[in-house]
Amino acid sequence: MSAALSEFELIERFFARSTTDPAVRLGVGDDAAVVAVSPGCELVLAVDMMVEGRHFLPGTDPENLGHKILAVNLSDLAAMGATPRWALLAGALPESDPHWLDAFSRGLFALAQAHGVSLIGGDTTRGPRNLCLTIAGEVPAGTAITRHGAHPGDDIWVSGTLGDAMLALAALRQRTTLPVEELAIARARLERPSPRIALGVRLRGMASAALDVSDGLTGDLAHICERSKVGARIELNAIPRGAALDAKLKGAERAFALACLLAGGDDYELCFTAPNREREHVAALASELALPLSRIGKITSESGIVVRDEQRQPMATLPAAFDHFASTL
Amino acid sequence: MSAALSEFELIERFFARSTTDPAVRLGVGDDAAVVAVSPGCELVLAVDMMVEGRHFLPGTDPENLGHKILAVNLSDLAAMGATPRWALLAGALPESDPHWLDAFSRGLFALAQAHGVSLIGGDTTRGPRNLCLTIAGEVPAGTAITRHGAHPGDDIWVSGTLGDAMLALAALRQRTTLPVEELAIARARLERPSPRIALGVRLRGMASAALDVSDGLTGDLAHICERSKVGARIELNAIPRGAALDAKLKGAERAFALACLLAGGDDYELCFTAPNREREHVAALASELALPLSRIGKITSESGIVVRDEQRQPMATLPAAFDHFASTL
Repeated sequence: MSAALSEFELIERFFARSTTDPAVRLGVGDDAAVVAVSPGCELVLAVDMMVEGRHFLPGTDPENLGHKILAVNLSDLAAMGATPRWALLAGALPESDPHWLDAFSRGLFALAQAHGVSLIGGDTTRGPRNLCLTIAGEVPAGTAITRHGAHPGDDIWVSGTLGDAMLALAALRQRTTLPVEELAIARARLERPSPRIALGVRLRGMASAALDVSDGLTGDLAHICERSKVGARIELNAIPRGAALDAKLKGAERAFALACLLAGGDDYELCFTAPNREREHVAALASELALPLSRIGKITSESGIVVRDEQRQPMATLPAAFDHFASTL
Repeated sequence: MSAALSEFELIERFFARSTTDPAVRLGVGDDAAVVAVSPGCELVLAVDMMVEGRHFLPGTDPENLGHKILAVNLSDLAAMGATPRWALLAGALPESDPHWLDAFSRGLFALAQAHGVSLIGGDTTRGPRNLCLTIAGEVPAGTAITRHGAHPGDDIWVSGTLGDAMLALAALRQRTTLPVEELAIARARLERPSPRIALGVRLRGMASAALDVSDGLTGDLAHICERSKVGARIELNAIPRGAALDAKLKGAERAFALACLLAGGDDYELCFTAPNREREHVAALASELALPLSRIGKITSESGIVVRDEQRQPMATLPAAFDHFASTL
């Protein structure tokens, strides 16, 4: 470690970038950061931790990792309809490797700049690789989209496509096979997810409830149902999926494909509910954002989630949702 | 793990406590938390990560750990003069052990309640034990105490006593010996530090610069000097220390005692600077808070830190400050 960087050199070299955000009164380099929340806005805060061997494989490209630790947090803000503003990064690293840090910070700052996010603080230490990012954003007071506002009769919508991240992970672990081109598409979904910030902001006042699909569709939708004291009925046919997954759904790997589609985490699409009267607005939004928004079902007054298969028959069993304490990567 | 708790059960059972804070619009249980910062206030944010084997020993009492992960973050806010409000906790745990979680959450919430802090969000996952807490507090706009306001001629002050945490760690690792009673005192400093929140809040408008002593006095003071573009001269005699450390300083373990006093981290006392004219105010504050505040030296215009020994001679070498990438626990 003789040529390694000290903690302070490391922060100075890779993470202490100046910001043009006038609301940042004090950034990296003091005991804490000081920022001014915009008048009339409430503050939205989330944190996500990613552990090597659990959320990402050893040897994962550090640039992708820098992207992803911010992306998964931005996705939480997107689900609230919040505009992201500031981030704090805490990290444990087995060593202070400048090449790794350079690539990691490049991935992190590229996405941060794309969304106008300033890194305002953090903490670094040695330890088993663990990345923990806290994101702070804003919404006009009272406009945050929660999980508890869904009503019976509301439509259920999903952005983009689901299942590709789990499909890519399975292919990388050689538990399924994919043509090279389709693996590349799925892998990009796993390694460089696109947080749906623009969608979330536009859903304020339109969606009755929302969340991001990080642990799998049915498991995540169950959170909306539980908080809103409602149920849901979704149509398997309507759940948006890529061509590779669609092919597997119709073949010998159907059970695996169902798991990807219904319980595959890590896609970071938004699932939201909205009253019927918003259908045209949602369609217009999809076209404006060039992002598919698929209506996959309805909120019901009976509790529980029913998934209807291609013959519109309720599926007897659903693949289990991801639980960070019940399975390994 | 068959009897273990799921991630959601774990959060619900140990961490989803209701809050009486009306500024918390949305707490644990959604994609993100929503809070309202007080009118006229700026937001102060910090994060600290603690890794098993590095910041605490395996087998550390989880109740103390729950206290400490919040205490070290509160200490960062104290150094800014901020009033703590909200916390988010991310944790990787090797298993979801209800006994461990019960004790950990008890330690965390006891300190949180003592300071009016609400836990509003978090993330849990399996992995090598790692605790990461983000703290959010407030200051009236423009009143945060930074590291860059020290001026030549300012007095340098320290709260409480320094060196006991390192002394306790050395004793626990059998690198020094302490009488039972003095070990208990030092150990409490290591395991259950008292964040100096009340002091920090009262120092607004009085201190020209401040930080908390987490990595060792001379190393931390160097941050004030660097940011303020000044130097410092401190008197060894004036640095406050407990009786056990004082005895070692005068005996065969002098070098070790100097390291504790000048470079021992983890004490979480405040080091602050203030103009001469504030001396009486500082003394009155010490008596009001029943917390010793010791004047240990002066800010100088020459760069660098000079420590004068008992004979008022500059010490030729200073013990190295703690660096999270340069040494092991």
